Amino acid sequence: MASSPGIPDIVIGRLPIYLRALTQMLQQGHSITSSHELGQRLGISSAQIRKDLSHFGEFGKQGTGYQVDHLLNQLKNILQVDREWPVVVVGAGDLGRALAHYRGFVARGFRVVGVFDTDPKKVGTGEDENRVRNMDNLEDFIRKNSVRIAMLAVPAEAAQAVSDRLVAAGVRAILNYAPITLAAPPDVHVQYIDPVMHLQRMTYYLE
Amino acid sequence: MASSPGIPDIVIGRLPIYLRALTQMLQQGHSITSSHELGQRLGISSAQIRKDLSHFGEFGKQGTGYQVDHLLNQLKNILQVDREWPVVVVGAGDLGRALAHYRGFVARGFRVVGVFDTDPKKVGTGEDENRVRNMDNLEDFIRKNSVRIAMLAVPAEAAQAVSDRLVAAGVRAILNYAPITLAAPPDVHVQYIDPVMHLQRMTYYLE
Repeated sequence: MASSPGIPDIVIGRLPIYLRALTQMLQQGHSITSSHELGQRLGISSAQIRKDLSHFGEFGKQGTGYQVDHLLNQLKNILQVDREWPVVVVGAGDLGRALAHYRGFVARGFRVVGVFDTDPKKVGTGEDENRVRNMDNLEDFIRKNSVRIAMLAVPAEAAQAVSDRLVAAGVRAILNYAPITLAAPPDVHVQYIDPVMHLQRMTYYLE
Repeated sequence: MASSPGIPDIVIGRLPIYLRALTQMLQQGHSITSSHELGQRLGISSAQIRKDLSHFGEFGKQGTGYQVDHLLNQLKNILQVDREWPVVVVGAGDLGRALAHYRGFVARGFRVVGVFDTDPKKVGTGEDENRVRNMDNLEDFIRKNSVRIAMLAVPAEAAQAVSDRLVAAGVRAILNYAPITLAAPPDVHVQYIDPVMHLQRMTYYLE
């Protein structure tokens, strides 16, 4: 199943949530589920789930629900995570190292293949794929390893310049942890993780 | 300005984005901005920005734009981050330590006041506020320090049990890094950070 044009990005954004829940269900021994059960787990209405999935075809039979492994494989295929994407981490501070060591990537479609930093004290530290590489070799490495995805864990002041280098070398998806909005060409996808934004969104509601 | 009821959560979710951009503008020496300029920076339409802000009153004069520091202070007030919230971090693995060391919290309304772990090898390590505390003292600490906010960086298997303890002790906002959906009472706010979800949302679009 190829990616279909014209599907709202907000729908695409929910598919990884469904995929994660289905993976958990399978681990817990469930082989059949329903939009109702999935919705209950996720706090999303069953109508929303059915509508989201209907963009991609028929996954369940009326009244019998979804086969968990089938739906899960279809979602992996739609999101193109039925393969392993090589990813570079730029920035080997606390956060960059935590990302490099994170064991949750591989089962879900990603492998950190290179970690980069400018700091001579950090370059050469770490083992195997987590050995910190010199930023001078960033573009070469990205081209040789056909890397399309990067996680950016550098200080805010450095983020735009690093992003420009990543894009010029062929990266098309950046997960940016630096607390600034990046300027990038329209064919480059940028997602942001800033814990403070999530916290600030919650304090609004606190008494 | 008190938090107004009935404002869509998606609007609240954009306010921290505006706040971050305005803070950056102020640092760069801009004292006046417009919904157009702000929108250009953020890739959000100026109409959307004006509509979002109109929920909270009048911030700019027709044709003269917004005063950056005034709008920034109003947004801080609305989001209740014109104060400092004490936050606990549960889980002192790579990620928990990265959060404990992150210097970006204080200027934006948050201070990590306690880090907790069950692992006897980790307890007692770290300095000052980052000294890792024993989980046995979690509830006591939360109550004594009136902590309402927690960041959860424990393995998926442990997350629900820890979340239940946090909530029972008085926490009302949880930033969950464990890759599972938490069950929590309706008056508890949960936000999720799962880098894989952000990556999977982008691979959909890659060729």
